[in-house]
Amino acid sequence: MACGRLGGVRKIHVIGIGAGDPDQLTLQAVRALKDTDVFFLLDKGEVKSDLTRLRRDMLDTHIPDGGYRLVEARDPERDRAAGGGAYSPAVGDWRTARADIYERLIREELGAEQTGAFLVWGDPSLYDSTLAILEEVLARGAVRFAYDVVPGISSVSALAARHRTGLNRVARPVQITTGRRLAEGLPDGVDDVVVMLDAHQAFRRYANQDIDIYWGAYLGTPDEILVSGPIAEAGPRIERLRAEARERKGWIMDTYLLRRHREVPKEG
Amino acid sequence: MACGRLGGVRKIHVIGIGAGDPDQLTLQAVRALKDTDVFFLLDKGEVKSDLTRLRRDMLDTHIPDGGYRLVEARDPERDRAAGGGAYSPAVGDWRTARADIYERLIREELGAEQTGAFLVWGDPSLYDSTLAILEEVLARGAVRFAYDVVPGISSVSALAARHRTGLNRVARPVQITTGRRLAEGLPDGVDDVVVMLDAHQAFRRYANQDIDIYWGAYLGTPDEILVSGPIAEAGPRIERLRAEARERKGWIMDTYLLRRHREVPKEG
Repeated sequence: MACGRLGGVRKIHVIGIGAGDPDQLTLQAVRALKDTDVFFLLDKGEVKSDLTRLRRDMLDTHIPDGGYRLVEARDPERDRAAGGGAYSPAVGDWRTARADIYERLIREELGAEQTGAFLVWGDPSLYDSTLAILEEVLARGAVRFAYDVVPGISSVSALAARHRTGLNRVARPVQITTGRRLAEGLPDGVDDVVVMLDAHQAFRRYANQDIDIYWGAYLGTPDEILVSGPIAEAGPRIERLRAEARERKGWIMDTYLLRRHREVPKEG
Repeated sequence: MACGRLGGVRKIHVIGIGAGDPDQLTLQAVRALKDTDVFFLLDKGEVKSDLTRLRRDMLDTHIPDGGYRLVEARDPERDRAAGGGAYSPAVGDWRTARADIYERLIREELGAEQTGAFLVWGDPSLYDSTLAILEEVLARGAVRFAYDVVPGISSVSALAARHRTGLNRVARPVQITTGRRLAEGLPDGVDDVVVMLDAHQAFRRYANQDIDIYWGAYLGTPDEILVSGPIAEAGPRIERLRAEARERKGWIMDTYLLRRHREVPKEG
């Protein structure tokens, strides 16, 4: 109980900041931003200065008087595009490298009794590794801290909202998966599939099936692009727009929902 | 283009208001609340006055000067608990009844050029029928309106945040499904399954498997209850707490994540 001489406990907020629209911040997230002394901004080493600026703009908007510190670091993100050729160490090394960085940031940049924050695009619960890394840092035992998680609007929710559609159909399931898995086949028993992290437009494989696609890129930002329709029709358009946007901006964040049509059961 | 004599176009916001914590409102949702002339509060006919009060409190907080109108109506929600015995007409009738109500509300309670809003718990894209009903009303053609969707923090995101866990494991899928489907079996090829609308604790069937459960009820409210652990240990505790809370409050909203353990592949 008594831990006086050990000093106070560092606190960390893991804050979901929404899919790109700064108005997707929740009131809880805004409160957590104001409560933070040190923000850790991890840059994935790609040309994503737009994203860095978006985050800085959020801080300027909600903490106009400053009073916080920004610490930027390079995040050794694993290259997700198979064969992409960029940074791609063994997974074990990659994890260790990330935990090393997070541990150092917390130990060296966050004073006892201070509160730090990691800002996560979308929602920290979906395809984000911040929580796993923090757990690993805690397990190592070299630095102690308490942390909480502020949920955010995921790109999945943002996508559905912009297309004004549900993710599931009545009483039916929806699966969220990756482009790599989709390339291996559509999951069994599910007709609504959300695909994230797809660098290779895995949907192309299904152009001959009766499947609609609801696609969105840069959701919630001024660059937002939305396309929907049967894959056979919308697919080529998405490929073209995606390539153009990626070329123009140097990066892309996109996601999509596939909706397979079958004979609709009476219950459907 | 010119539609002068037909009058202005009614507008409707479908606003995701988060899972129960009023601070889970997004800035975009707050803006939409302030922009609304008429709020349609649909009551499911159960003893959920807590939920009605929570919504009214949100309005009082963000629109303290009033200036809006509240219209309450009975929503003929289909009884989801098989054999529950309450309101349970054929699905077709149920849909027609709901569309009738929504159409009447929009036609009779919303003036031309006014903006109405439906407040949806969680996120409108997950197991909510508001969007489908609005589409049905539009398809009937008796009343015209434009609508948009404001995404919200789903109970799924709220659950994961409170348990400080991800929904998926690295590069693996997650499926969101219903209690009824879970009772039929665990989905193939997925080891992380979020279960909603489970009135019968379908997780019990899996107590003999190496599965962890992360359960939450009344997420984000003062009544919140969280339990996690192997189903075999946590399951009985959840059943007891759930029954007690339901008895005490007259209603319950809960959801959970099941995480199946397997031999972890090198990639995992």
